[in-house]
Formats: sequence, structure tokens, C-alpha cells
Amino acid sequence: MDRLTSWERRTSVALLAIGVVFLLSWAIPVLVPNLPTAADTALWYLQVITWALFTADYLIRVTLAPRRLRFLVRNIPSLLVVLLPLLRPLWLLRALLLLHVIADRIRLPLRLRAVVYVSGTALFLCMVGSIAVLDVERDNGNIKTIGDAIWWSLTTMTTVGYGDRFPITAEGRLVASGLMIAGIALAGVVTAAIASWFVERFERTAALDRRTEAGLAQVAAELTETRKALADLAHTHNMLRDELATLTARLNS
Amino acid sequence: MDRLTSWERRTSVALLAIGVVFLLSWAIPVLVPNLPTAADTALWYLQVITWALFTADYLIRVTLAPRRLRFLVRNIPSLLVVLLPLLRPLWLLRALLLLHVIADRIRLPLRLRAVVYVSGTALFLCMVGSIAVLDVERDNGNIKTIGDAIWWSLTTMTTVGYGDRFPITAEGRLVASGLMIAGIALAGVVTAAIASWFVERFERTAALDRRTEAGLAQVAAELTETRKALADLAHTHNMLRDELATLTARLNS
Amino acid sequence: MDRLTSWERRTSVALLAIGVVFLLSWAIPVLVPNLPTAADTALWYLQVITWALFTADYLIRVTLAPRRLRFLVRNIPSLLVVLLPLLRPLWLLRALLLLHVIADRIRLPLRLRAVVYVSGTALFLCMVGSIAVLDVERDNGNIKTIGDAIWWSLTTMTTVGYGDRFPITAEGRLVASGLMIAGIALAGVVTAAIASWFVERFERTAALDRRTEAGLAQVAAELTETRKALADLAHTHNMLRDELATLTARLNS
Amino acid sequence: MDRLTSWERRTSVALLAIGVVFLLSWAIPVLVPNLPTAADTALWYLQVITWALFTADYLIRVTLAPRRLRFLVRNIPSLLVVLLPLLRPLWLLRALLLLHVIADRIRLPLRLRAVVYVSGTALFLCMVGSIAVLDVERDNGNIKTIGDAIWWSLTTMTTVGYGDRFPITAEGRLVASGLMIAGIALAGVVTAAIASWFVERFERTAALDRRTEAGLAQVAAELTETRKALADLAHTHNMLRDELATLTARLNS
Repeated sequence: MDRLTSWERRTSVALLAIGVVFLLSWAIPVLVPNLPTAADTALWYLQVITWALFTADYLIRVTLAPRRLRFLVRNIPSLLVVLLPLLRPLWLLRALLLLHVIADRIRLPLRLRAVVYVSGTALFLCMVGSIAVLDVERDNGNIKTIGDAIWWSLTTMTTVGYGDRFPITAEGRLVASGLMIAGIALAGVVTAAIASWFVERFERTAALDRRTEAGLAQVAAELTETRKALADLAHTHNMLRDELATLTARLNS
Repeated sequence: MDRLTSWERRTSVALLAIGVVFLLSWAIPVLVPNLPTAADTALWYLQVITWALFTADYLIRVTLAPRRLRFLVRNIPSLLVVLLPLLRPLWLLRALLLLHVIADRIRLPLRLRAVVYVSGTALFLCMVGSIAVLDVERDNGNIKTIGDAIWWSLTTMTTVGYGDRFPITAEGRLVASGLMIAGIALAGVVTAAIASWFVERFERTAALDRRTEAGLAQVAAELTETRKALADLAHTHNMLRDELATLTARLNS
Repeated sequence: MDRLTSWERRTSVALLAIGVVFLLSWAIPVLVPNLPTAADTALWYLQVITWALFTADYLIRVTLAPRRLRFLVRNIPSLLVVLLPLLRPLWLLRALLLLHVIADRIRLPLRLRAVVYVSGTALFLCMVGSIAVLDVERDNGNIKTIGDAIWWSLTTMTTVGYGDRFPITAEGRLVASGLMIAGIALAGVVTAAIASWFVERFERTAALDRRTEAGLAQVAAELTETRKALADLAHTHNMLRDELATLTARLNS
Repeated sequence: MDRLTSWERRTSVALLAIGVVFLLSWAIPVLVPNLPTAADTALWYLQVITWALFTADYLIRVTLAPRRLRFLVRNIPSLLVVLLPLLRPLWLLRALLLLHVIADRIRLPLRLRAVVYVSGTALFLCMVGSIAVLDVERDNGNIKTIGDAIWWSLTTMTTVGYGDRFPITAEGRLVASGLMIAGIALAGVVTAAIASWFVERFERTAALDRRTEAGLAQVAAELTETRKALADLAHTHNMLRDELATLTARLNS
């Protein structure tokens, strides 16, 4: 285990905590519009601090990475999250992914894990998407309350898209794009999990192909013949033994 | 079989009957708005009685459960159905699930059973969803008749979502969420069933992998060599026998 | 082959021809609204005649069926098509299905056949759905031209559902339901065909399971040991032969 | 390798370059509406020249094809692209497909390649679809800016279809149809890739069917018996050898 992995494991819980703090400091001003100025400023400072911590973590990871260039290429999402304010809530997703490394030790069956991940990711994206869209759409658009925002997120992720609520700002549409694509991918995972379950069930009962069976039957037949050959050999042997007995009898007499 | 399972089996038909009565006592006042007050009151009492019966059944099951805590955790949906009036029509779903235990004995092929379940669940959810949404949306929203409600349910479950009808109350949106997610899951089951059928068909004709065939061919080749070795042994034997025959001849002469 | 199957085979081409005539006699008055009265009446008579022929075919099939009750149960859709005017265009679908029996002899690969069927069915349903919805919605709804109707069919079957066009009559909504469900099923078939292709590709390269390989390796190892045992036996044999040679030498001397 | 394939390989890079030039000469006037007349005319000439080059390439390929009729049938899309101005941007897709022949040598794992192709195709179609729909809808419809057009493309390809933007011209609806069908197919590929991944994972752990195991166990059992037979034979042998030793001893004495 190299130093980067070791660092990532040791910081995963802390990062998750910081992620939750960041999410709260970002979500509360959006959800409670008439916050007293003092609280608003405090939350803003908290947001800046958590962002600084995330950036520091990213820089430390760059330093620790054994192959720096490959690390940079593979962690373009992390860089984008550091640089773009809109993507920042996705930090929490990374923190959750790190926890997954730990959770791996509790060996849940793969399909149940898929269900847990899909439900968790869907809920998280719906929540974050709702807050994000409310933040950018409240002033101009037709998404004015958190209830509307959650409802819109749901109709978007399920690709229902009634059209009673929809984003009109560029940022809102960006959030929507993410939710749409995530929704399709999550629906795909659900379908795929059911399909693989069906396939497995049918495989187990429909059993193996005739060709293998034929191959095995051929092997068994050949073995039977081998044993017949051995029996013939044993018969020859017995005859030999009888002849030797006769010989001995003759020599004795 | 423990006492809980025995209780659940014995009560399943009764529970289904109560579920149907509950559904009717809940649906009729929604579908027939101008019901005479007497009938309305009667139906309301019926609803209360069926609810009481369901609650009693739940409490009895809690008492009978061998591991009470695990029962409570696994039956959180049942608890929610008992506590939340909006979820109450889903009792019937549980009753149907119980019937499935009995239906299991008639061994329908898995894929046909999937089709029957999907169609049945889709129909049931569409029906219950339509009535539920009509109940909460009639006074404020744009879903005013049962025709509109069924149409809206269909466009929601298939994720078409024209947007000519949509819920505006929180309860209506909750019903909609359920229908959307159920719709995606049901479409996933349909796709998965077709996919597994395709996979099975192709498996059967495309046959087994070359590696197994190669492995079996290797086994067969090795067996052929074994038999060749046995033939050689038999040859040596015959020579031995000839030599013994010569020896015997010499001794006789 | 019983008499029913023989009848269905012999009439399939005629039935397809009648189906096309029926479709034209039903579609032309919808597509060309200001038809001269004479042509309109002629087409109406044509429609009645083709309907009579279909009904006659159904009755003959009922008579020919070896197990009449089972035939009635399995052909409920046919009965519905005979009884309900709205479903009548689906006769053509049955006629197409009959052609499929003939087409079966040209052995197209299963997946290509799936693609051909899905595309064909989608096109046919879109066409018939557009004409049907135009017929019932033209006077009241917002689907006024065949262009609008085709556009609406497409947005419905793909579950996009913009909501710029939608049916408002009960008949139009019934047509819409059919298109939605057909669209989901067809998308499911497409997804399933791709999935099975992927599975097949990966199966072929990912090869067989380690357990089979282990099993085969065990068989091979056991065979190697068998051969070693045979070699030992041959060695003992040779020693026996040497001893006999010595014995012969002694006797000779 | 026949002359047609050789020509297609040698021209693929040039064709891609011409495709890019064509795309730019077609996209720039749409994206920058108030272009100076000189630039507009220059781009129009560029468009004509690239179209002439594509047509020349098509005619050369027709000439080189070994079986001309089969080539014409299989390349109906190419012919349509040459004849119909609306489909012309799809030339680039063909050029990309040719590059794929080269890219085939870099052996990416099949599933990763599927992801790259789906993402690439989705992005390309979204981009081309947005420009095409903006071109035909700007004057009459409700898609007035490239931002609206991209947003509409996304909501169409993901089948969300809010209905805040939709095409109203026949050409725009044709573009929409292409995007819808492409969107469903791409979502199908994503689902299928995940499903095949699941299936593969489960196959590897769930292992082979009991029947094969049973077959192999039978083979192993039969081999064990073969070895027991050989051991018996060896025992008889040893007895024979002892008897011969006795015989020799007798003769010596």
C-alpha cells in the first residue's frame, strides 16, 4: 500500500465529516432564505474553510501520488470540484466513495450492494440537485420552494418531465443535465440488476449446454472401454497363471 | 414452521378479503362524490373497522414473532401502513403477497410468473394511484375526474409525462413519486425478462466456451494414450505367454 | 398438423391482402377529409366487407379448432378485434404474425429478426396509432393534421411526451395507452437484444468458470497417475520377463 | 483485402478532415447569425466543395465495389446523405466509423469501448442535433438560441421532454425523431453494458451448474475404480511373480 492510499484511508472519515459540514453550510442559506446576517456570514466562512480543507487535501494527494501525471488525469473530476463552485456538493460523493473502501470489508452480496448504492446515490443526487436548482432558479424561474425543487428533481430523474416546473437559467439546466443522465444510469443499474438475477436463475435451472454433456458422455464411454480392456488383460493374466500352475505341477511330478 | 408463519398462512385469505373491503370502503366515496350521508358514514365506519383489524393483525404478528426486534426492523413498511393513512391501500399489496405463498405451489414458469406479477402490480398501482390522486387533487388541482386520474397515472408510470395533468398538492406528488419509481422498476423487470430470454436462447445455440471443449479434448486425448499403453502391455503379455508356451514345450520334450 | 393450422396457413396470404384493403379503406377517409361522398360510401362498404370476411375467418377457425374452449380462451384478442371497431386495425398485425410462420423458414439470425420485428412493429403501430388518434381527436383536440398525429405518436412511443400535443378524448387516450406500453416493450426488446449480445461476447472471451477448469485439471491429474500406475505395471512385467528368460536359460543349460 | 477496403482505409483520415471542415462551414452560419456576407458566401462555397468531395468519394466507392448491387443496398444511408441536405452532418459519423477501423488496433476492453462510443456518439448527436434544430426552428419556433437548442436536445435524448421547448417545423421534428431514437438506443447500450457486467460478475462467483459437476464427479469416480482395477491386477502380478520365484527355486534345488 503506497502513501497515497494510506493517506486516503486515514482521512476518509474526516473528509466525510467536512463534507457534511460543507453541505450544511451550503444548504442552510438556500433552504432558509431569511437567515439573520450573522448566521449567514458564519455559514459563508464555514463554506470557505471547508473548501480550503478540500483543496489542501487535493494538493496533498497530488504530492503523495507515486505517478503524478496519471493521478492528475484520473482525478480531473476532483480538480473540477475544487475549481468550480457549482460542482462542490459532489465532494460529499467522493467522501462517500472513500467510505465504500471501508464498507467493502462488510461483504454484502453484490446485488444488494448495488441496490443500496443506487438508492443512496439517487436520494443524495435528488437532495443536492433540489437545493442547487432552488439556489439558482428561485429569483427568475418557476421553481420557488424546496417542495417544487424536490418534485422537479424527481420528475427529471425518472425522465417523466411533466413540464410544470423546469429550469430556465444556464446553471439550472446544467444541474438538470446531471440529474437526467444520473437518472438514466441509475434506472439502467436497476434494470441490469434484475436482468442478471433473472439470467442467473434461469442458468441454474436450464443447466449446461448439450455439447458439454456430450463431451462428458464421450469421456465416460472411453473410460468404460478402458476398463473393459483392463478386464481382458486380467483374463489373459489368469490364463497365464493357470498355465504356470500346470507347469509347476508337471515339474513337481 | 414457527407460529408466526403458521398464523400468516392461516390468515392470508381473510386478510385479502378485509383488504378488498377496505379498498372498496376507501374507493367508493372518492369515485362517487355525491353519496348519501348514511352510506358515506357506513363506509367510513367500515374503513375504521378494517384498519383496526389490520392493526390487530400487526400486533398479533409482533407478539408471535420469534425474534421481535428483527421482525420490527423487517416490517417497517407494515408499521408505516398502520400509522400513515395515505399508505393504507398498500395493505392489499401485502395481502396479495401472502396469497403468493399459496400460489407458489402451482409452479408457473418463472418468466410467465414475472409477466403476471408485473401486469398485476401495474394494474393495481395504476388503479390505487388514480383513486388516491383523485382524492387529494380534485378540489385544487387539474385532475378532476377518474378518467383524468387514470390517464395521468398511465402517463406517469410509463414516464411519458405530457404535463397536461399533474398533481400540485404534496400528497398528490407523493403518490406520483411512488408511481414513477414503480413504473421504472416495472419497465426494468419487463426489459430484464426479455433480456434473460434472449441470453438463454443464445446460450443454448452458441454453446459452451472453447476452453471447456479444449479441456475435454485434452482429457479425451490423454485417455486415448492410456488405452495405447494398455494395448502395448497386452502385446508384451502375449509375447510372455508365447515364451512360456515354448518353455512348457521344451520341458515336455 | 391439424385442420386449424392447415386452414391458417392456407389463408394467411389472403388474410394479409384483406388486412391491407381494410387498412386502406379505414385510413383513406381519415387522411383525406374532403372525400367525395361516393368514394366515402364505397370505402365504407369495403370496410364492412373486410370486417365480414374477418368475422367469417374467426368463426371458421372456431369450428375447426380441435379443443374449442381452449381456442376461445387463447383467442380472446381475436374476439375483441371482431367486436370492437377501435381495435380492428390490429387485424393486420395478426395477418403479419401469420406471415411470420412462413418467414420462419428463411432462418434469419434471432437477433436480426428481433431488430426487423421491432422496427416493423414500431413503424406499423406508429402509423396505425397516428391515423386512429387523428380520427378521434381531429374535431375536439389539439391533434389536427396527420403530421401532428405522427409527431405525437413518436413522442409518445419514445416516452418523451413534450405535451405540445396530447389526446383529450377517451378513445384517443386508449390509443395513447397502447402506444406507451408498446413503446416501453419495444425499447425493452432493443435493450435486451444489446444486453444479450454483450453477454455473449463477454462469455466467449471470459470463458468458463474456474471450478470447471479445476474439475478438468483434477481429471487430467488423475489420468496422469493412472498412466504412471500402468508404467509401473509394465516395469514389473519386464522384470518378470527377465526372470522367465533366466529360467529358460537355466533349463537349456 | 479488396480495392474498396483499401481505398476506404487510405481515405479515412482525409474524409474525417473534410467532415470537420463541412461541419464547421455548416455550423458557423447557424451559430453566428449576423455574419458578414463575404464570410457567409465563402462558407457556402466550402460547403458545396466538401459535398462534391463526399459525392466523388461515394461514386469512387461504387466503382471499386466488387459486388456493385450489394454495395448499393448496404450503403443506402450513404446515398441518402449524398442526396438529402438535412442528413449531411451525418457524413462525419461515417468518417468517425472509418477511424474506428484504425482504432480497433488499440485493443480497448469491449465494455470501455462501448462507454467511449456511447458518450462520443451522444455528444456528437446532441451537438449536431442542436445546430440542426436551431437552423430550422429559429425563425418560427420557440428554440431561438443555441443554449435553448442544446437544452432541448438533452431533454429529448434523455426522453425527459419537459415541453418548454419543442420543434414545430417538419424538419425540426425529423431531427427530434432521430435524437429520440438515438437516445433510447444509447440508454439501451448503457443498461446492456451494466447488465452484462453484472452477469459476468455473478457467473464467475456463482460458478458452474450442478449437472457438470455431477458429470465430472462421475468421471472422477470411474477413474478411481479404474485405478482400483489396476491395483488388483498388480496384486495378481505379484502373486504370479512369487510363484515363478518358487518355481525357479525348485528348479535350482
